[in-house]
Amino acid sequence: MVVVLRIGHRCVRDQRLTTHVCLAARAFGAEGVYIHGEKDEKLVEGVTKVVGKWGGKFFAQQIGNWVAFVKEWKGQGGKIAHLTMYGEKVQDVVGKIRKEKKLLVVVGAEKVEKEMYLAADYNVAVTSQPHSEVAALTIFLDRYFEGNELGREFGGAKVKIVPNKCGKSVLVCNKGAKQYKGEMC
Amino acid sequence: MVVVLRIGHRCVRDQRLTTHVCLAARAFGAEGVYIHGEKDEKLVEGVTKVVGKWGGKFFAQQIGNWVAFVKEWKGQGGKIAHLTMYGEKVQDVVGKIRKEKKLLVVVGAEKVEKEMYLAADYNVAVTSQPHSEVAALTIFLDRYFEGNELGREFGGAKVKIVPNKCGKSVLVCNKGAKQYKGEMC
Repeated sequence: MVVVLRIGHRCVRDQRLTTHVCLAARAFGAEGVYIHGEKDEKLVEGVTKVVGKWGGKFFAQQIGNWVAFVKEWKGQGGKIAHLTMYGEKVQDVVGKIRKEKKLLVVVGAEKVEKEMYLAADYNVAVTSQPHSEVAALTIFLDRYFEGNELGREFGGAKVKIVPNKCGKSVLVCNKGAKQYKGEMC
Repeated sequence: MVVVLRIGHRCVRDQRLTTHVCLAARAFGAEGVYIHGEKDEKLVEGVTKVVGKWGGKFFAQQIGNWVAFVKEWKGQGGKIAHLTMYGEKVQDVVGKIRKEKKLLVVVGAEKVEKEMYLAADYNVAVTSQPHSEVAALTIFLDRYFEGNELGREFGGAKVKIVPNKCGKSVLVCNKGAKQYKGEMC
């Protein structure tokens, strides 16, 4: 079980990036995302809408105090991997982390407080270069799931894309019946 | 040689996401990024500043008409991989694409016009799920470089991070001398 915790979300400034964090978490195999920071109903609604259309059981939920949340998580036997450019190399530690069965992957918006570095069981760097929490999370999940998440199916989807060399092929799944909508090159 | 083309950039709405696209392109091994869309000096300045501090020779440059740009690229023998959720699976086609020696990787901001699907030598899907152009680009580059980009060094860096289990270790490289700044847990 892998879930993501996004900390420090700010309503206007981070809305698109946090949305990308949530969607990448879903697409690359996490079961859900907890969002700490400013209340943002539009964000949670948007992610929930994507799940309704594209399938799977992914959840997005806002939380209050992340310190209390993390304490409870650890109290239940959960482990924490905090993604930070200052951490250990993902390629060195992911093999060990893969053995953890209840994992919280933490990504910050801006500067992350020292308490998170201390609370984390693993501080993990996806390169030690500045880039993007979306990229870091994606590579981390990809390594954790050893690439298998790329072929994942999402149950109960209303639409499904059929890979295509050029153009768009979309299966519209309606009450069992599947209708094909193809816009070809 | 791999460079990235970001199309459809909009100044305010996309500034942070395009910045993440640029920084991910750099961190995961591309040589530079061309940005099509609204003129955005702040964006290019920001990326250039990161390169100055963190090293390497990555470039960020704005272009006008992408259709003309792509035509010229192809005229010079370059190939194009357009990342789209509608394309062929990255895991199926990346082996073939890796043989291309001059590659332009295209990521859109919003809806991409049909002409790009037609111009592309490869339309490539990094999962057929909705997520993020930052995630798609990162996984594509990671697969293209077979993970080797994670250990890449950037020449001429002014600062460099030393991987750390907990806390921050930064080497400040000043005219040949290296000074250590460590903030430990």
